[in-house]
Amino acid sequence: MPTASTRVPQQERSRATQARLLEATVDCLIEHGWSGTTTTVVAARAGVSRGAQLHHYPTKAALVTAAVAHLAERRADELRTEAEALPAGPQRLDRVVDLLAVAFTGPLFVAALELWVAARTDRELRDALVPLEATVGREMHRLTVALLGVDERRPGVREAVQATLDLLRGLGVANLLSDDSARRTALLTTWKRQLATLLTP
Amino acid sequence: MPTASTRVPQQERSRATQARLLEATVDCLIEHGWSGTTTTVVAARAGVSRGAQLHHYPTKAALVTAAVAHLAERRADELRTEAEALPAGPQRLDRVVDLLAVAFTGPLFVAALELWVAARTDRELRDALVPLEATVGREMHRLTVALLGVDERRPGVREAVQATLDLLRGLGVANLLSDDSARRTALLTTWKRQLATLLTP
Repeated sequence: MPTASTRVPQQERSRATQARLLEATVDCLIEHGWSGTTTTVVAARAGVSRGAQLHHYPTKAALVTAAVAHLAERRADELRTEAEALPAGPQRLDRVVDLLAVAFTGPLFVAALELWVAARTDRELRDALVPLEATVGREMHRLTVALLGVDERRPGVREAVQATLDLLRGLGVANLLSDDSARRTALLTTWKRQLATLLTP
Repeated sequence: MPTASTRVPQQERSRATQARLLEATVDCLIEHGWSGTTTTVVAARAGVSRGAQLHHYPTKAALVTAAVAHLAERRADELRTEAEALPAGPQRLDRVVDLLAVAFTGPLFVAALELWVAARTDRELRDALVPLEATVGREMHRLTVALLGVDERRPGVREAVQATLDLLRGLGVANLLSDDSARRTALLTTWKRQLATLLTP
């Protein structure tokens, strides 16, 4: 029976192993896509034994879903930290939209999109992913409201935030195969002005 | 050497074979996704010999790209026909947005998204798809401008049309794993009012 002093390092080792597996999964999804991501390739990439990988995440669906949840939390933390450095005042809205646009063209978006599309025709992945998608979507909405510092009880604010996130998702897909940044920047310049009008009491 | 009378039916047969292959490809992409779509499965589904399939579309990339181009043309024709039945006046904008929302949650969008995501990590498909994506994107933009009956030379019109299409693309992705129609309808009701303001001289 382990003593308290050996149990803690063991938990820490488990957490470190899990983190390595999840980071390797996201890297693998980004580099090889859903069909090129196998639990064997991920275990090798993470430097984790096949047995340990199966112990922590018994199926590919469990592994990739945990990986995207892990990355979503990390990205939300990063967004909060980056937003703390933003100026108050009218420029803040512009900077928040810029930060979100980076998120919707970054690795989390690409990895999540691989899973969303694969889940459409894979029941096991779909069952694992649908609740996660709902949670991540709600969290992203809450975070955007907080970063913008707006009051959702005001009429139109909720819809304006939703439209911003849906627009950014669309722009993320448009950036998938080619660099769409010039068009995106121009479009978002216009959108920021509209959004400021929609959010101003 | 074939005479004129035998040559014409032969061309017709070729076109019919191609059409069957392309429809079967789209059906296959929708039902099984990119990784479940093989040229063998498509040929069997279309009732076309493997030899004939290879003659018309020698690679999977050629087949799926042609299939999405074919479906995009058919959808554009359908949109034009549906739009002819629309009333003139202020209700027209609402109905055009509704038609586009149907297109961005329909089979063409789903099949195209399968290819866009797969092309990110498949060089052959990417090389075939990038020019097609640009053409289809431009054509969709032109069609939207025409359906709305607006003048793109007016400041802000081009950006408003672009934002509408990017928003609809984002809403299409949001609809991939679960029925998002209630949220989409509410969001588009707000968007239609904004768009009317942006497009009105």
